[in-house]
Amino acid sequence: MKLGDGVEAVIHCAALLAGADPGTTVPGAAMAEAFGLSPSYLLKHLNALAAAGVLESVPGPAGGYRLARSPGSITLLDIVVAVEGAQPAFRCGEIRRRGPNPLPASAYRQPCGINMAMLRAERAYRAALAETRLADIVAEFSADADPRSVAQSCAFIERHQRPRRAPRRHT
Amino acid sequence: MKLGDGVEAVIHCAALLAGADPGTTVPGAAMAEAFGLSPSYLLKHLNALAAAGVLESVPGPAGGYRLARSPGSITLLDIVVAVEGAQPAFRCGEIRRRGPNPLPASAYRQPCGINMAMLRAERAYRAALAETRLADIVAEFSADADPRSVAQSCAFIERHQRPRRAPRRHT
Repeated sequence: MKLGDGVEAVIHCAALLAGADPGTTVPGAAMAEAFGLSPSYLLKHLNALAAAGVLESVPGPAGGYRLARSPGSITLLDIVVAVEGAQPAFRCGEIRRRGPNPLPASAYRQPCGINMAMLRAERAYRAALAETRLADIVAEFSADADPRSVAQSCAFIERHQRPRRAPRRHT
Repeated sequence: MKLGDGVEAVIHCAALLAGADPGTTVPGAAMAEAFGLSPSYLLKHLNALAAAGVLESVPGPAGGYRLARSPGSITLLDIVVAVEGAQPAFRCGEIRRRGPNPLPASAYRQPCGINMAMLRAERAYRAALAETRLADIVAEFSADADPRSVAQSCAFIERHQRPRRAPRRHT
């Protein structure tokens, strides 16, 4: 079982964006550079987060990404599902009825117990991911990480965040 | 995130083997036929279970597979780890230090909080898998599955199990 590498990248990006001033955006290319990632690779995953309503993507030369909601209302589950999809890791192929002499369909009305047991474990995984909010990750980072690391993140945001654009006026 | 299809196949096989008489073996090819799987595909995964000490593989023309221990002491976690490996699904690439101006190593002594949070969720998943024993799967199947399905499994075992071989005598 393996999660795609994109998950690590976008959680780090979302945690960075949580430190930006409200309404400001940060370019995806700047975040790609900060984590030594290819911009096209990172943008693909950031756009998946935008499609899932976790981030907002602001287009144009002065655009970038920002959180679509507060860090307290974004969970690790939201982020993992945005990148990896909502399908369970265990995908029951109903092999119990794939043999040469399958019973009539009425014999398989009861769901397969093996599938049920595997999905029970996945519910425990998802519940644990849903318990951790982006705000918790950021608070833990601010409290426990090396002060140089926290200062580096703050400096990154100060250098790269782009001001909220004034709403376009219709005259 | 996706588990390999082999997981479904080997859990079904282990549950079948739990119904065989003690010491008897069941050929892998017969189990492959019962689940509509290619024998070489299934044998690869059954051998992974044997390597992990979940099954025993008895070689020779009258050989096959049997559980290496009682169904009460085999968990879904034992089986999943045997097939998928023990590595976590989230593999931290330490991208926090991959940027163009990494801090000295001493700034990263604290483990990355994102990795810690992801591994916490995986521990919940593994704990849930470890709570379900093969004996539970079999008991649930016997109690809840359609009686025709239970009868079909029993008939399969009766037809395919091979007697325990008498220990070789040294004269």
